[in-house]
Amino acid sequence: MKILIIGASGILGSYLTEELSKRHEVITAGRNSGDVRFDMSDTKALTDVLENKGPFDAITVAAGHAYFGALDGMTEENLIESLNSKLLGQVKLVLYGQHTLSRGSSITLISGILADDPVDKSSALAMVNGGINAFVKAASRELAPRGIRLNVVSPGLVEPSAANLGPLFPGHVPVSMKRVVAGYLKSIEGNINGEVIRVQ
Amino acid sequence: MKILIIGASGILGSYLTEELSKRHEVITAGRNSGDVRFDMSDTKALTDVLENKGPFDAITVAAGHAYFGALDGMTEENLIESLNSKLLGQVKLVLYGQHTLSRGSSITLISGILADDPVDKSSALAMVNGGINAFVKAASRELAPRGIRLNVVSPGLVEPSAANLGPLFPGHVPVSMKRVVAGYLKSIEGNINGEVIRVQ
Repeated sequence: MKILIIGASGILGSYLTEELSKRHEVITAGRNSGDVRFDMSDTKALTDVLENKGPFDAITVAAGHAYFGALDGMTEENLIESLNSKLLGQVKLVLYGQHTLSRGSSITLISGILADDPVDKSSALAMVNGGINAFVKAASRELAPRGIRLNVVSPGLVEPSAANLGPLFPGHVPVSMKRVVAGYLKSIEGNINGEVIRVQ
Repeated sequence: MKILIIGASGILGSYLTEELSKRHEVITAGRNSGDVRFDMSDTKALTDVLENKGPFDAITVAAGHAYFGALDGMTEENLIESLNSKLLGQVKLVLYGQHTLSRGSSITLISGILADDPVDKSSALAMVNGGINAFVKAASRELAPRGIRLNVVSPGLVEPSAANLGPLFPGHVPVSMKRVVAGYLKSIEGNINGEVIRVQ
């Protein structure tokens, strides 16, 4: 398969690139590094990649940013930035990607445990993750007749982040990167559709 | 209690206004009708109402708009409009409302069944509803220590809409407006916090 990994230079992206490269042609993408460089919020750049670097058999996102901070001091700008980045960026990938993909291909997005199991200061991130999960469940049913699968991986706190972020996630048991990568494989190499793949 | 009902002129808003008026002081609000008239997407107008027409013991939203249409033909503008209206509008109400509310007050938002149980053409609405539900779950925990409760009512297809919309919701059993209003009462007059009140 020819696979586009967006956010390939992050921790998760690196693990995913390593695993998928063993048996697929991987095109890495990121804002500042990778085979192709673009910002997902830039629609023109996104459609350029989809139309000119493909066709891809799988498109996957391995990173996403949204605001993490107390509701008390949250601003409208924090919210808008969060929506534009991790939520709208990924949904746009589906919107534009659907027209460039063939039967048998897949899209795999990323959300996170805070949609279901929030912690203090996580309301913007929870909102974004919850929106992605529900979008995937609905949109996947419309993609199915066209032979395109759509899933989302929702990781818990990952082991490499546990040292720094652990105190902010009381009672959350860190998950290994190997298990998160396995979640992606279920979507990319498996046959599931419309699933929120909770790696928690 | 002094209760602000936003979207009071809609079908649900009318039922809610009628019920709550029996034992509370109700201030109705809407874009084109009501005691106060404003658009929730207009931040200045929203904060003006919260600061000058209150203080309110309960703020509730009874209407919300998002795009309903096939993923195939969906545009970025359809998505942005959906996010700005039903999602960001309500989250902003919490963001600004939290600073004008006293201990013992509540905020009640609206989402909908499509977050959990989508139908064809519902991906934008599902995204918005899922985002609201997850936001409420996360944000309510930060409001709790300040004595403010936050819940969201997620109605199924409502009986008055079933004649027109029923064919788009195969297998969905319409719910009575009385039951939806009862969901709001659980939040406004009850003591629950952080709940997605599914009236389905």
